[in-house]
Amino acid sequence: MNNEIRLFSPATVANVACGFDVLGYCLDAIGDEMVVRKTAEKGIRITKIEGYDLPYEAEKNVAGVSALAMYEALQPDCGFEIEIYKNIKPGSGIGSSSASAAGSVYGMNELLGKPLDKTKLTYYAMKGEALASQCEHADNLAPAIFGGFTLVKSACPLHVLELPTPPDIFATLIHPQIEIKTSESRAILPKQIPLQHAITQWANVGSLVHALHTNNYDLLKEALIDVVIEPHRKQLIPHFDAVKLAANNAGALGCAISGSGPSIFALSKSEATAKAVESAMQEVYSKTDIEFETYVSKINTQGIKTL
Amino acid sequence: MNNEIRLFSPATVANVACGFDVLGYCLDAIGDEMVVRKTAEKGIRITKIEGYDLPYEAEKNVAGVSALAMYEALQPDCGFEIEIYKNIKPGSGIGSSSASAAGSVYGMNELLGKPLDKTKLTYYAMKGEALASQCEHADNLAPAIFGGFTLVKSACPLHVLELPTPPDIFATLIHPQIEIKTSESRAILPKQIPLQHAITQWANVGSLVHALHTNNYDLLKEALIDVVIEPHRKQLIPHFDAVKLAANNAGALGCAISGSGPSIFALSKSEATAKAVESAMQEVYSKTDIEFETYVSKINTQGIKTL
Repeated sequence: MNNEIRLFSPATVANVACGFDVLGYCLDAIGDEMVVRKTAEKGIRITKIEGYDLPYEAEKNVAGVSALAMYEALQPDCGFEIEIYKNIKPGSGIGSSSASAAGSVYGMNELLGKPLDKTKLTYYAMKGEALASQCEHADNLAPAIFGGFTLVKSACPLHVLELPTPPDIFATLIHPQIEIKTSESRAILPKQIPLQHAITQWANVGSLVHALHTNNYDLLKEALIDVVIEPHRKQLIPHFDAVKLAANNAGALGCAISGSGPSIFALSKSEATAKAVESAMQEVYSKTDIEFETYVSKINTQGIKTL
Repeated sequence: MNNEIRLFSPATVANVACGFDVLGYCLDAIGDEMVVRKTAEKGIRITKIEGYDLPYEAEKNVAGVSALAMYEALQPDCGFEIEIYKNIKPGSGIGSSSASAAGSVYGMNELLGKPLDKTKLTYYAMKGEALASQCEHADNLAPAIFGGFTLVKSACPLHVLELPTPPDIFATLIHPQIEIKTSESRAILPKQIPLQHAITQWANVGSLVHALHTNNYDLLKEALIDVVIEPHRKQLIPHFDAVKLAANNAGALGCAISGSGPSIFALSKSEATAKAVESAMQEVYSKTDIEFETYVSKINTQGIKTL
């Protein structure tokens, strides 16, 4: 058995417009790389971090915390070193902490001969995720670990549903370089919402799941609408309405906030449309003084993987 | 072309636990019969009503109002007589008014050579439904007209999704003979609900749709849960909790209020289980002084039909 693994831990989009806290999908064009290495010395050590400035102490690092949770549960007769080559900027809204949290447990699981299934891996990764967002949620972790589109039926007990991915869907992302803390974007949400809005939202969630099962792109377009969260959170993202309008005018099936923002995603029916949507999004932000990055990605149906 | 049609207009279950105002399914074991007849004399006339005491004036009768709406839109060169043989008790919560509203427009459409599709029929039937419930909704009409399980993506513009029906599902219904007005059961609902409850509900709706597509009965069981409406409406139905407990103990996949009540439905994985659930429900109400009726039915995937 190999003593070292190099892996790709993908970025992800949570919420997917109508499915706040439950839906997500996995990206292919951006993700972290990590190396996990078995050591004779026991314990979890983070030995290298490149890309962004993150803590080396395992118990203060998202990847370290998830690794420790799994390590303490399995009590293997070895230790692990973790190297993190971070491409996903922390706080970008495309699952940066989830990629780290998933990477360490995936790598350890591979090196131990896969004792855990994907649900168990997600469970331990949630312990790391909780360090970043102060609550255990799986809406980014589930797509990172399972791939494709996922629905977190419940977080406790953890139950992840793997939804089908229509073949022609591509994602476009724009990441404006502003900072929104997850805690801040949670605090802006109301504790109570109008029943009528909730009904619209669950009709959309049901329609989205049906659309994925039936490759119905027209229905996908009608379902990718968020009447509950977006009206509050979009205030934190400058030019959100203009980006959304531009994306939809360029042919996107839908456009909404990625996770808790500030990234904005669109889904389109072809790569060509996704690229046209990228140009349209770039044009909006080019006229501002906010730095930004964009990506076009196919949906990653495999999820986290060994390189 | 025939000048007369005899039809079966089925009872239906709206809401289906988690899908308030959007989900529904169609029953087979109970429904109204109607005769619709082309006449040389123009206009809509209700010429016979058996079973329950309902108004003969077309503009005061649900079947008449939907017929008039369609008649005025199509302006055919004839009139129609309608006979209603009502089996579904008005106010029972299994789509009595929807069966009437659907029957007249279905019959007229057949006699006119089917100029309208099912969505258009539902649209005109909603005009009749509005007479009974003071609002135009389609959560009973859609399953009555389309058959099977349906999701009303939106009522305006009307968009109905036909969901798959797993092969082994059977419904059990108990109708306690008490009166709950739809208006009363709507008034008891809060205008605002906790965001956390809404999230649970839309996770359940998404899971239910996924379960129907994948014939996943275990998931169906987890999804048939209503945390938003049931806590309020069950107060209007004596012994609801006891019936639900008995149904679940007897092996039901789930048990919840049918539409706005007072009927209670359960879904089960086989006809044998559905019958065991029926006995369990009967036992609860037998110990009370409330009269009741029960039904076991397969899911009617055809919907309203010519006899």
